[in-house]
Amino acid sequence: MAVYTDLTDEERAAVVASYDLGALSAFKGIAEGVSNSNFFMETARGRFILTIFEFRFVEAELPFFMDVMARLAERGFPAPQPLPTKDGALLTRVRGKPAAIVTFLNGVSPKRPNVAQCRAIGAALARMHQALDGFSQTRPNALGLHAWQPLIYPHLALAEQLRPGLAHSIEADLAEVISWWPDALPEGVIHADLFPDNALFVDDRIGGVIDFYFACTDALAYDLAVCLNAWCFEARGEYNITKGQALIGGYESVRPLSSHERVALPQLARGAAIRFFATRLADWSDTPAGAQVTPKNPLEYADKLDFHRKARSAADYGG
Amino acid sequence: MAVYTDLTDEERAAVVASYDLGALSAFKGIAEGVSNSNFFMETARGRFILTIFEFRFVEAELPFFMDVMARLAERGFPAPQPLPTKDGALLTRVRGKPAAIVTFLNGVSPKRPNVAQCRAIGAALARMHQALDGFSQTRPNALGLHAWQPLIYPHLALAEQLRPGLAHSIEADLAEVISWWPDALPEGVIHADLFPDNALFVDDRIGGVIDFYFACTDALAYDLAVCLNAWCFEARGEYNITKGQALIGGYESVRPLSSHERVALPQLARGAAIRFFATRLADWSDTPAGAQVTPKNPLEYADKLDFHRKARSAADYGG
Repeated sequence: MAVYTDLTDEERAAVVASYDLGALSAFKGIAEGVSNSNFFMETARGRFILTIFEFRFVEAELPFFMDVMARLAERGFPAPQPLPTKDGALLTRVRGKPAAIVTFLNGVSPKRPNVAQCRAIGAALARMHQALDGFSQTRPNALGLHAWQPLIYPHLALAEQLRPGLAHSIEADLAEVISWWPDALPEGVIHADLFPDNALFVDDRIGGVIDFYFACTDALAYDLAVCLNAWCFEARGEYNITKGQALIGGYESVRPLSSHERVALPQLARGAAIRFFATRLADWSDTPAGAQVTPKNPLEYADKLDFHRKARSAADYGG
Repeated sequence: MAVYTDLTDEERAAVVASYDLGALSAFKGIAEGVSNSNFFMETARGRFILTIFEFRFVEAELPFFMDVMARLAERGFPAPQPLPTKDGALLTRVRGKPAAIVTFLNGVSPKRPNVAQCRAIGAALARMHQALDGFSQTRPNALGLHAWQPLIYPHLALAEQLRPGLAHSIEADLAEVISWWPDALPEGVIHADLFPDNALFVDDRIGGVIDFYFACTDALAYDLAVCLNAWCFEARGEYNITKGQALIGGYESVRPLSSHERVALPQLARGAAIRFFATRLADWSDTPAGAQVTPKNPLEYADKLDFHRKARSAADYGG
């Protein structure tokens, strides 16, 4: 949680002037995001978030993310709406870095979502999939199946150091998941990172879904599997099946799963856990001591994998 | 710029429920302040800042700061207004730490204030002094004259390392300022830290003055001297006398300086520069490598002292 780019008065004025926004009445750096700098801003036209893309972003991919958000907002889904500059572009530049202004969404992110919030996010995920149905652009999932071995293998010694036996079990997980990975499932644009900190609630109603910067084209049910990992576990890898029932039930209240998707759910959930284990392990290894951002512990996902390894059917997840 | 305390859902809900605020519609950590954690929050009743006091604060002194802000808001000065809890207290506790909720003020802090903003802050400072006239509580200035030698002397070797010759010149500054320090000037509650990042502007009008956590009882003209240091220098210790004229002129448009205050101004300005040099030097020495907060460079104030050493009268400052 950090602001990496502290704007000068001139930079701030220039970016605001490049949009049709009127005078600035508030501007504050917000402690959110690890790959970009975010500023809360208010003008006569409303409240907005200015994002400066700092790291990790392939600039050529930013228009995809902007167009996904624009499409969602246009379809009435509560995603941030990118604002066009006076020149009509959805992206601009600040201090040589790409930047965008999007609408501010009300709501509060839960640290530990409750059952009603799990149901609401399930339904929102399905509505998001429907709103993106027929979207013409595609983006491969850069953190999909083929990325996991290259992310994990260089750090197997670190995994073993974090927990004896983990190197072996994660190798076995990888081998099994890769050989059994489901294909031919319904695909579309997925969020791919819909954790509770990317969801905003007003009480238990969805106020917004944010941070579409991992969005890509992949199996819709994989997005649901990511959510099961992110929303339905308690501490130490205990799966909360009541939350799982709510989340899957919420999803299916909008978009029922096919029988293929249902059968594939345990492998998808295991794969999703490997994906987050993989990036957390690599981040854990790469973060210098004293860095501004504390990496998330990969062992949280090693615990979840212990559950997925034993799951046999969608019913084990509450489906 | 950091958020040190990341609240759980229960802690957040508990603090909101202890005030008569209604339901929360937004809650975001903001990247401001180095001694506390700040959160932007919105409820049915308006927009607020929740501050959790983390370091440096003597808890027994917090009521003084709260009462100063409450008095200012009551007198129509644009300071944050502390909200009472349902029990009527202006302070509460979050995770065992003292905390307060104050009103959110509109405006943007300039990095490099312009002449109009210097005039506006001068006038605001004088209005603030008037609004606090007759305030019954007092708080000694913990970073006043007597604090400077104890802050600086342990770090003279570091000062010399930062710039050869600095140890000697700062010792001479200290000796002269202490022997010539003006007394019997009009006193009252001063802000004592009114830097541009503690001022909010909507265009060039004052939207608010914030961060009263150094407020104390001291010479009113010393507060003006702090502002001359904080608002009227350009890079490398160049004093901008146009800004100085605007700031002093703005102040005197509300509260004219006495002849004693005018004569004392160069010593007060030099003392104020020593005060900020002193804390920056101590912070520079104490900050561990890799800390979340980057200390401010003490040499900025060594440069300013080069100007003050030569100043002979208020006219040298634009007064």
